[in-house]
Amino acid sequence: MTGIALLGAGRMGQVHAAAMAAAGARLVAVYDPVTRVADALASRTGAAVAPSAAAAIHHAGVDAVVIATSSDTHVELVIEAVNAGKPVLCEKPLASSLAATRRCIAAIGDQAARQVFLGFNRRFDRGHAGLREAVHAGDIGRLEQLTITSRDPLPPPLEYVPRSGGLFRDMMIHDFDMARGILRQELVSVTAHGSSIVDPEIGKLGDIDTASVTLLAEDGAIVTILNSRRCAFGFDQRIEAFGADGMVVSDNPRQSGLTRYRPGYPGTPAPILEFFMERYGESYAAEIRLFLDCVREGRDMPVNAYDGLMAAYLAEAATLSLKLGKTIHLTGPDQEFDHV
Amino acid sequence: MTGIALLGAGRMGQVHAAAMAAAGARLVAVYDPVTRVADALASRTGAAVAPSAAAAIHHAGVDAVVIATSSDTHVELVIEAVNAGKPVLCEKPLASSLAATRRCIAAIGDQAARQVFLGFNRRFDRGHAGLREAVHAGDIGRLEQLTITSRDPLPPPLEYVPRSGGLFRDMMIHDFDMARGILRQELVSVTAHGSSIVDPEIGKLGDIDTASVTLLAEDGAIVTILNSRRCAFGFDQRIEAFGADGMVVSDNPRQSGLTRYRPGYPGTPAPILEFFMERYGESYAAEIRLFLDCVREGRDMPVNAYDGLMAAYLAEAATLSLKLGKTIHLTGPDQEFDHV
Amino acid sequence: MTGIALLGAGRMGQVHAAAMAAAGARLVAVYDPVTRVADALASRTGAAVAPSAAAAIHHAGVDAVVIATSSDTHVELVIEAVNAGKPVLCEKPLASSLAATRRCIAAIGDQAARQVFLGFNRRFDRGHAGLREAVHAGDIGRLEQLTITSRDPLPPPLEYVPRSGGLFRDMMIHDFDMARGILRQELVSVTAHGSSIVDPEIGKLGDIDTASVTLLAEDGAIVTILNSRRCAFGFDQRIEAFGADGMVVSDNPRQSGLTRYRPGYPGTPAPILEFFMERYGESYAAEIRLFLDCVREGRDMPVNAYDGLMAAYLAEAATLSLKLGKTIHLTGPDQEFDHV
Amino acid sequence: MTGIALLGAGRMGQVHAAAMAAAGARLVAVYDPVTRVADALASRTGAAVAPSAAAAIHHAGVDAVVIATSSDTHVELVIEAVNAGKPVLCEKPLASSLAATRRCIAAIGDQAARQVFLGFNRRFDRGHAGLREAVHAGDIGRLEQLTITSRDPLPPPLEYVPRSGGLFRDMMIHDFDMARGILRQELVSVTAHGSSIVDPEIGKLGDIDTASVTLLAEDGAIVTILNSRRCAFGFDQRIEAFGADGMVVSDNPRQSGLTRYRPGYPGTPAPILEFFMERYGESYAAEIRLFLDCVREGRDMPVNAYDGLMAAYLAEAATLSLKLGKTIHLTGPDQEFDHV
Repeated sequence: MTGIALLGAGRMGQVHAAAMAAAGARLVAVYDPVTRVADALASRTGAAVAPSAAAAIHHAGVDAVVIATSSDTHVELVIEAVNAGKPVLCEKPLASSLAATRRCIAAIGDQAARQVFLGFNRRFDRGHAGLREAVHAGDIGRLEQLTITSRDPLPPPLEYVPRSGGLFRDMMIHDFDMARGILRQELVSVTAHGSSIVDPEIGKLGDIDTASVTLLAEDGAIVTILNSRRCAFGFDQRIEAFGADGMVVSDNPRQSGLTRYRPGYPGTPAPILEFFMERYGESYAAEIRLFLDCVREGRDMPVNAYDGLMAAYLAEAATLSLKLGKTIHLTGPDQEFDHV
Repeated sequence: MTGIALLGAGRMGQVHAAAMAAAGARLVAVYDPVTRVADALASRTGAAVAPSAAAAIHHAGVDAVVIATSSDTHVELVIEAVNAGKPVLCEKPLASSLAATRRCIAAIGDQAARQVFLGFNRRFDRGHAGLREAVHAGDIGRLEQLTITSRDPLPPPLEYVPRSGGLFRDMMIHDFDMARGILRQELVSVTAHGSSIVDPEIGKLGDIDTASVTLLAEDGAIVTILNSRRCAFGFDQRIEAFGADGMVVSDNPRQSGLTRYRPGYPGTPAPILEFFMERYGESYAAEIRLFLDCVREGRDMPVNAYDGLMAAYLAEAATLSLKLGKTIHLTGPDQEFDHV
Repeated sequence: MTGIALLGAGRMGQVHAAAMAAAGARLVAVYDPVTRVADALASRTGAAVAPSAAAAIHHAGVDAVVIATSSDTHVELVIEAVNAGKPVLCEKPLASSLAATRRCIAAIGDQAARQVFLGFNRRFDRGHAGLREAVHAGDIGRLEQLTITSRDPLPPPLEYVPRSGGLFRDMMIHDFDMARGILRQELVSVTAHGSSIVDPEIGKLGDIDTASVTLLAEDGAIVTILNSRRCAFGFDQRIEAFGADGMVVSDNPRQSGLTRYRPGYPGTPAPILEFFMERYGESYAAEIRLFLDCVREGRDMPVNAYDGLMAAYLAEAATLSLKLGKTIHLTGPDQEFDHV
Repeated sequence: MTGIALLGAGRMGQVHAAAMAAAGARLVAVYDPVTRVADALASRTGAAVAPSAAAAIHHAGVDAVVIATSSDTHVELVIEAVNAGKPVLCEKPLASSLAATRRCIAAIGDQAARQVFLGFNRRFDRGHAGLREAVHAGDIGRLEQLTITSRDPLPPPLEYVPRSGGLFRDMMIHDFDMARGILRQELVSVTAHGSSIVDPEIGKLGDIDTASVTLLAEDGAIVTILNSRRCAFGFDQRIEAFGADGMVVSDNPRQSGLTRYRPGYPGTPAPILEFFMERYGESYAAEIRLFLDCVREGRDMPVNAYDGLMAAYLAEAATLSLKLGKTIHLTGPDQEFDHV
C-alpha cells in the first residue's frame, strides 16, 4: 500500500485525498499552512498532521508526495520532494511563468523532471482520453486537423483578471497540453487572435475573453483552439480529431440518457455536465490511479514537468503573437522567441 | 415510356401524377367524377380527360392504371382494370371490409391479385425500408422482438370516427402491413388493448384512441404495435427490430441537421417531419418507381391485394380481440375466427 | 452520524458498505455466515464483527439495518430488525413468493412495512428517476402510454433457470416496480406473452426468455414491458413515457461523449454502460443516501415492503396469464386471482 | 408565369431547369454551345432552342435569364443580360479573378449588380439557412465565434489543381460567402494557414489541401474556417455559431432515421448525405424559388454580384496571407492590399 504525504488540504487536496482512498493508497501525513484545515482532513482519514511540508515529505512511511498547495509554492515543494527522492504529483501550474518553469526544471534536472507528475487532469477525461487513444492507435489514420473547443460557463471575477496571467496562460494552457498529448510531435508556429467581446471590462484590463489560436505541426497538421470565458449553456469542452481515414469527436457528455419531446422541441437531451468538478471529477481519480501505478513500477510519469514547460511555452508564444499581431515561429522552450 | 391512366385527380391523384412525371412515366388519360378537377390536372400534364373510368382504362396508349378515387369505388375499378388486362396500383384500402376484400380477390383470382399493387406507401419510407432490408439481410440475426410506434399529431374530427371502421382498420392497418413485410412469416395470434384516454368522446362513439397490440409469430417472435391518435410533438413513426445479433431502429427523421444549445437545453435537434406528406412524401415517389419497374418487367407486385387482405384480416382480429377481451388465434383470412 | 448494522458482506454487502461510507454513515457492525468475509470487510472499515445477525442488529450504536444476505433469509431478518425497532433496508426480493411476501407483511404489520426500504435500486438511476420526476411534475401532461424495455446481455446459466421463479418473478419484477412508481395508480389487468426464441433449452425448462406484457391502468393508460434475456449490444434499459403534452425517454447512457466517424459509419457513439454495476452502480449510492435521509427524519420509506408485495403480485399475475393464455384482472394482492 | 432563358444546358443547367419546372416557371429558350445538349433539354421541356446566348436572352416571352455556362463566359453574358434589362441568376463564380469581378461590376453599375443573383446555393441549405435565421433573429444573442467546417470527399484530379485558382478561390469561397451572410458586418482581417498533408503532389503544384483561416469582424467576433480536400466519411459540411445566449449548429443531415445497434457499436446513425447534389440538391430548388420571387416583385437579389466581389476579395486576401505568412488587414475590395 503506497503511503502518501499530502501538501495542501483545501478543496483540491480533499479531492486528491478521496481519490487516493478509492485507489487503495494510504494517506500517511498531511500538511496545510492553515492547521485547522489539515486537522479536519487528518481526523477523517487517520493521517498524521505534519508541522511543515518538509516534515510531511520526510514522514515515516511516505512513498510519494502530492502537492495541492497554492501555485506560488509549487516550485519550492517540488524541489524539496525531489531532493528527498520521492515521486511527486504536483497540481498545475508547475510555476507561475515560463522563466520560473525553466528554473525549476534546471534545479531538479531532466531526469527528475520526468518523475514529477504534472496535474493536467483533463488528459484523463474518459472521452478525451478515448480520443487520444484512438488517434494513437491509428483509428483515423494520419491526423490532419485537430480542433479543441473549451468554454467556461462564466468569466472569472474582474479582480482576478490582472493576476491570471491572461487567457492563454490561465485557461488555454489546458488545451495546449491536450494538443501536445494528442499530436506527439513538435509544433512549429503559433498564431493567436482574440477579443474582449464577452465583457469589454476584461479588454480594459488588457486581457481577452474570446480566442482562436492556430498551431502548425511539423508534418503540416493544423491545430485550432477556440476559447471563450462564457458559455450560456454550460461547460463546453470538446475535441475533434480529423484524419486521413476518419474522425473522432469527444463531445460534452450528458448528465443522463433522459431526452424530452415537447411540442416544437422533440428530442432535447439531458443537460451537459455543469462545471469542472462534475465534468472532470472522475479524471482526478483516473489521474491518481495512474500516478500510483507509475510510483509502484518506478516508471517515468506520462505527463510531467517537461509537459508543464511546453504548455507554458506555448501560452507564452500565444500571448506574444496576440500582442504583436503576427505568427510566432517556435524554436524551443529554452530559446528566446525569434520575433525581434 | 409507360402510359398511365389515372383514376381520381384529387390530392392523392395529384401526388401520384407528380411522382409519375418524376419517374419518367407518361400520364395518358385522367378521369375524375368532378370534371373540373380532371380538367385542371390534364391541362397541366397534357393528358386526355376521359369521360369515365372505363374510358380512361381503355384509352389508347395506357399500359397501367393508378386508382386514387374514393375508397368505396376501389373494388369495382380494380376489377375493371384487371379485366382489361392492365396492371394496377390501387390506393389503400383495397376494400371497405375484410369480407369485401375477400370478394374482390375471389372476383379477380389469385394470380391477378398479385398484379394489383396495393398502396401501403409507408413500406417505401427510406428509414423503414432500410430497416426491413437490414432485417432481411440478416444484419440483426433472427428477429426476436419487433416494436412499431405510430402516432398521429391530432385525432380525426369526431364525425369521422363512426365511419372510420375503428382505429385498427383505419390507422393500425399500416402497422399490420409493416409488421408482415418485415416478418415474412405467418402470425399466430393477436391480442389487443385499447382505451379512449385522449378523448372520452371517441370512447362514447365506440372507438379507442390509444392502443397496444401484441402479435405472436410462428417462430416465437413477438410484435408490439403502439398507436395513439394524438401526439403533441408531431407525427411519431418509429420501428425497432431487435434480433439475436443486434438491433435496427427507424427513428423519426429530422427536418435538418440544425441543433440548438440554449441554457438548460443544450442540443435540441431540429423538429421531426410534421405529417404524412412531409414524412412519407418521398415514399410515394419510390412506390411509383417500383410499380413502374414491375409493370415494365411483368413482375408480381411486391405489395399486392393479398397483403391488403392480410392487413384487413389482422385489423378484424384486433377489433374482435378488443371487443371480447381475449387473444384471437389466427387460422387464415379465409376462415371464420375460432373464438365462438 | 447514523450507525449501521450490515447483514451480509458479499458483493452486494460491499457495494452497500462503500455507499454508506460515501454517504457519511458509519458501519458499526457486520455479520456474515462466512466469518472470513465479515472479517475482511470489518478490517477495512473499522466495524465490529458480530457473531450473529441478531447480535449485529442489537449492537450498541446501531441505528438502522441493511440486509444483503441470501434471499431466503430476508423475511426472518426483516422481522428481527423490525422487532428491534430499527429501520431496515432490505435487498430485493423481500420474499421468495407472493404468499411469503404476504406473510412477512402480516407478521410485521402495515405500519412497519412502510419502514422497510426495499432495494429496487433501478428507481434511483439518474435517467429513470428524471423520467419519473418529469411525469410526476406534469411535464408531459396525463400519462397515456408507458413502454419499458429491459434486456440483459446474456441469459443466466441454464441450471439457474428452474430455481429463478421464471422470467416474470426474476427479471421483469424490476419493471413492474418501475411501472408502479411512475404510474402512481392501480393497475386493472395483466396480459403476458412470451417465448423461448433466444434459447429453446430455456423453453424445455418451462421458462421463457423473451416477453411482452401489457398492463392496463385504472384511467386507461397502457403499459407495455418488453424483456429479453439476451442483448447482443449490451444492457438495454430504456423507458418511454408518452403523455398528452409530450414524451420523456430515458435512454441507455453512454460511457463517454466519444463519437467515431468512419467511412460508411459516420457518428457511432461510445458504447452504452455494460451491465448492472456499471449502469446502476450510482443508483446504489443514491438509494443509500435516500434511506439515510428517511432514517434521520423518521419518514416512511418511499419504496417499501408494500411495493415489494405489489411487484410480486404483478409477477404472479403475469406468470398466470402466460400459463392460461388469457388476461388476468387484478383485484388486489390479498385476494385470489379471478380466473377460476 | 415567369419566362426563363437558360444559357448552358449541361449538368447545372439541367438542375436549374428541373428546379424552374418545380417552381412553376416556364423555360422559354435554351442556348448551349453544344447544340445537341440544348436540343435534348429543349425536347424534354418544350423550350425553343436559341442559336446564340443573345438570341435566347432576347427571345419573346423571356422575363429573366439563368446563366449556367462555363465560368469564363459569365462576365460577358451577365453584361449582355443586364443590358437587355433582364434580371439574372448567374452560377458562381461571377468572374475568374478579383480584378475581373471588379471590372464586371464597374461595367454594369452598382444598381444592376444588385439585380444579379449570384448562385451561392449553399446559403439555401435548410440547416445552414436555419442557422443564419436563428442568428439574425437573435436566438443566440450577439455572435461571438463562428466556425465553418467544409470538407470534400475526395481531392480534385491533379490536373485540375493548377487552373483551380487554389483552395481559397476554388473551395473556401463558399465558406467566405457563408460567413458574410451570417455575420452581416465587415471583416477587418484575414489570417490563413494551410498545408498539403492530404497529398504532397498538391503541394508540389503550389496549392494546399488542408486549411484553417481566421477572420476578425469589426466588433471582435472571430470566424474560423476549416477546409480539407478529402474526407473519408463523406461530405462534411457543418457550421457552429456561438453567441452570448447560446449556440446553433448546422450538422450534417442523415440519409434517414435508421440507426444500428451492433455489438460494440450501439447506435450508429444512417450515413450523411454523400456529396453536393445529394446534400445541396434541395438548395438549388430553394434558390430558384427565391430568384423567381425577387423577379416577380422587382426586388434586389439577396445574394448578388456584390457578394461575389466580397467572397473573391476574401479569397484573394487569404491567398496572400498564406503566401506572406502574415495577417492581411482588409480595407475594402476596391483598394490594394496594405501589405506592401
